[in-house]
Amino acid sequence: MEPRGENLIGPEALPGRGEPWRALEAATGRGMEPCFTSATPGMVQHACVLADAALDAYRGMGHEARAAFLERIASEILDLDDALIERCMAESGLPRARLEGERARTVGQLRMFAGEVRSGGFLGARVDPALPERRPSPRPDLRLRNVPVGPVAVFGASNFPLAFSVAGGDTASALAAGCPVVAKAHPAHPGTSELVGRAVANAVARCRLPAGVFSLLFDHGFTVGEQLVADPRIAAVGFTGSRAGGMALMRIAAARPVPIPVYAEMSSINPVVLFPAAAAARGAEIGRAFVAALTLGSGQFCTNPGLVLGIEGSGLDDFLDGAARAIGDVAAQTMLTPGIAQAYRAGVAALEGNPAVAVVARGRAGDEHRGRPVLFSTHAADFLADRAVSAEVFGAASLVVRCGGMGEVRAILERLEGQLTASLHMDADDHPAAQSLMPLLERRVGRILSGGFGTGVEVGHAMVHGGPYPATSDGRTTSVGSLAVGRFLRPVCYQDIPDDLLPPELRDDGPTAVPRLRDGRPG
Amino acid sequence: MEPRGENLIGPEALPGRGEPWRALEAATGRGMEPCFTSATPGMVQHACVLADAALDAYRGMGHEARAAFLERIASEILDLDDALIERCMAESGLPRARLEGERARTVGQLRMFAGEVRSGGFLGARVDPALPERRPSPRPDLRLRNVPVGPVAVFGASNFPLAFSVAGGDTASALAAGCPVVAKAHPAHPGTSELVGRAVANAVARCRLPAGVFSLLFDHGFTVGEQLVADPRIAAVGFTGSRAGGMALMRIAAARPVPIPVYAEMSSINPVVLFPAAAAARGAEIGRAFVAALTLGSGQFCTNPGLVLGIEGSGLDDFLDGAARAIGDVAAQTMLTPGIAQAYRAGVAALEGNPAVAVVARGRAGDEHRGRPVLFSTHAADFLADRAVSAEVFGAASLVVRCGGMGEVRAILERLEGQLTASLHMDADDHPAAQSLMPLLERRVGRILSGGFGTGVEVGHAMVHGGPYPATSDGRTTSVGSLAVGRFLRPVCYQDIPDDLLPPELRDDGPTAVPRLRDGRPG
Repeated sequence: MEPRGENLIGPEALPGRGEPWRALEAATGRGMEPCFTSATPGMVQHACVLADAALDAYRGMGHEARAAFLERIASEILDLDDALIERCMAESGLPRARLEGERARTVGQLRMFAGEVRSGGFLGARVDPALPERRPSPRPDLRLRNVPVGPVAVFGASNFPLAFSVAGGDTASALAAGCPVVAKAHPAHPGTSELVGRAVANAVARCRLPAGVFSLLFDHGFTVGEQLVADPRIAAVGFTGSRAGGMALMRIAAARPVPIPVYAEMSSINPVVLFPAAAAARGAEIGRAFVAALTLGSGQFCTNPGLVLGIEGSGLDDFLDGAARAIGDVAAQTMLTPGIAQAYRAGVAALEGNPAVAVVARGRAGDEHRGRPVLFSTHAADFLADRAVSAEVFGAASLVVRCGGMGEVRAILERLEGQLTASLHMDADDHPAAQSLMPLLERRVGRILSGGFGTGVEVGHAMVHGGPYPATSDGRTTSVGSLAVGRFLRPVCYQDIPDDLLPPELRDDGPTAVPRLRDGRPG
Repeated sequence: MEPRGENLIGPEALPGRGEPWRALEAATGRGMEPCFTSATPGMVQHACVLADAALDAYRGMGHEARAAFLERIASEILDLDDALIERCMAESGLPRARLEGERARTVGQLRMFAGEVRSGGFLGARVDPALPERRPSPRPDLRLRNVPVGPVAVFGASNFPLAFSVAGGDTASALAAGCPVVAKAHPAHPGTSELVGRAVANAVARCRLPAGVFSLLFDHGFTVGEQLVADPRIAAVGFTGSRAGGMALMRIAAARPVPIPVYAEMSSINPVVLFPAAAAARGAEIGRAFVAALTLGSGQFCTNPGLVLGIEGSGLDDFLDGAARAIGDVAAQTMLTPGIAQAYRAGVAALEGNPAVAVVARGRAGDEHRGRPVLFSTHAADFLADRAVSAEVFGAASLVVRCGGMGEVRAILERLEGQLTASLHMDADDHPAAQSLMPLLERRVGRILSGGFGTGVEVGHAMVHGGPYPATSDGRTTSVGSLAVGRFLRPVCYQDIPDDLLPPELRDDGPTAVPRLRDGRPG
């Protein structure tokens, strides 16, 4: 199957209008077939109208049908087979193994949300039975469940063309919540997006859902996205991308007559804390593991370890030696887009030009489409004195800060903005120092991990892929894992409503498998 | 105990600066002793600094100590005894029985949150144990719990001087979450606020908590509140009041370098749907019950029934007759402030001057400080044609819309903005019509109730006192009931963190009573 350059507006596949544009092959910068044209304002509006019209029917279908739909999307994506992987390799420059893994993750994620829908846990069902004899006033019968917020706009990310894109975590969790989705494809991988979008549209048709449950819009600029977030029928937004992009959407959403939540995952440099005992015991080994995490996928992960805090001494020297040797062997890898490659070079150049920053080591050089890994170092005082040093460089660049002691490590962590992750490398002797940092880390990040790096975000029930602003726009949430469905739900209370008018899961004779709190207690 | 006109900045009680101002006795408009002066910018900042400094110690104290603190606040409030009730009666114009009930509610609410803290349910604990043998890659150990977002700014409401004010639901739920609170007293009841604030401060001292856990600021204008919401140490805002006030705070919060959530409960007209069979069977009876709910507390409830949708016919006539007779017996009651009384008269006058609106009946007249109840009627076509007709009039005024059939009822509900509640009055024969409205009601409101009215918000586990914008600024939440604590929490994930560094409730040998999901399943 080949992409055709068409917007998918509910059941229709339509070319857009205006200047045609093409995907650029990541490794060469050459334009690829077919041409895409951006969705017109009428198409954007029509997609939103269809989504709104589909809401009640879709959410009323029952959970088994909703779960089966998510599973059907998964199998439709697998049916795209190698055509999807090849198109995606060309558009993203990511290698086959990575994309096959990402496809498995995307499919697994859809199935995980299908399981969450079947379990009924996302309903948050609660029952406080009536107490007619209570004094001074009787207690009414109160029952609560979550309902979907309404149609959701999803913006695909450049760096995960499958798992955080058209049928990625935002779409899967919104559909699991019962929300129709209007997706905006990332212009870096429009062909991949169209193929996946057609897989979702096929699933909609095969499952006989209302056609407005899913639409996919293309644009290589900003107007489609801006119109989408401003559309009165859209009730929430999922976004993964740059801080500037996320903040622009937040501003539009806040200025609407009816403001809506924006779940934007934006920027993070993911501090790594190298504790002294661990560094002394195995600094070089940690350095090698660090380089493996740093250079994975050309460093184009939101959880890429962009900052290392270590304490001056032979352990830190060992870490730097190990890292320098390892990075020297790493080839420059193709970056996602020519623009990202260019931004990476500019970010690296800015650090190179900073007199307080030294180059520790570099990877092997490559052409202009490839990112050459690089490790910098600086001193804590310089880091604390110059905010520019801590700016995120998207790609395989990281900065080691030489600290005089744990006091400086703490001072730097206090100065950092909100982050997705913090990684601790420690031995038993480091635990007291780590313990004293925990409250601070809990205030700064969404996930604290030990002995590893933030890359490789497990799709599970206890995952948090989120964090305080500006890691995300809303630190109360996660965009990965089953909790992500909660972003697209709101509670409704039913007071003294007769049984036949209650949703099935709240009836006295309702499905017993749905977890409920009764008077605040499980069971 | 008498109020002294002092701001409570952590452990210190301090007069503010600038023009002194007084509470106005609601029934007479006369100024009351003592004078209050508004908090200075330095005091506001100091309160925020203290709150931030107290966060880690307070949240680290353990849940039993936190629960005991909440209970201590409750007993300190009860110890204020009649001095509190009398001051509150004078400032608010609300009668003794109502305020004694509101005190009981406030105290009960603090104790309910103490129970929620002890149960550990608010932690949202989740454990996905490691799967070291999993292929292609092992699963790390993942554990999740909620942590407090940080210091919370709470704005007291005019209409619940105890239950939605200094130690009301927002404060109680923030403290339960582990967040220090900086409260801004409502200028309509500063003496009541100071008395309650001193009760909280006493509890802080007696429980030996860090002093910054609670501060109370006074201002009769907006500058203190604006500074408070803009302060970088404040992490979330709780507010109950006008739409203009809530939106002003939302704008400030969104424009901060680090935006924060605002939980503002703002405006709602709480539609009542009178179904035909119920109206035919007992229209007059429903009309009398409606008037009782409408005129309770001079109608100064966010859940006051401001709109009735009925279908032309003898049942609706019976309802109007019953309501008219009942309202004629109701005396004008003192309103909360001279300003609210004046706004009520203006809102009533605007409807009186609208040629599409007729007066059905009025209550007994009173002086300028009292609100005279009034019931208006109009026709569906006029209501749909003129948005001004559906504006909230805060007080005991309501509008009955005569509809030609369920189609017009639906059209009006579709046109309405987000609401806190919708009340259905129906008999068995009405259920099919009600069933067809349920999806629409679920999209519009936070609580759907049958056979009653929205006033009397039960403090429980299954309550939702919230709703889509503009009923609240964030329809994903509730400001009443145990779920309210979730507004001030965010999840943190711990990946492969050694047991001794985990919070106790996530350890393998942690307290077994804390509810957890293990691999997404309870138990």
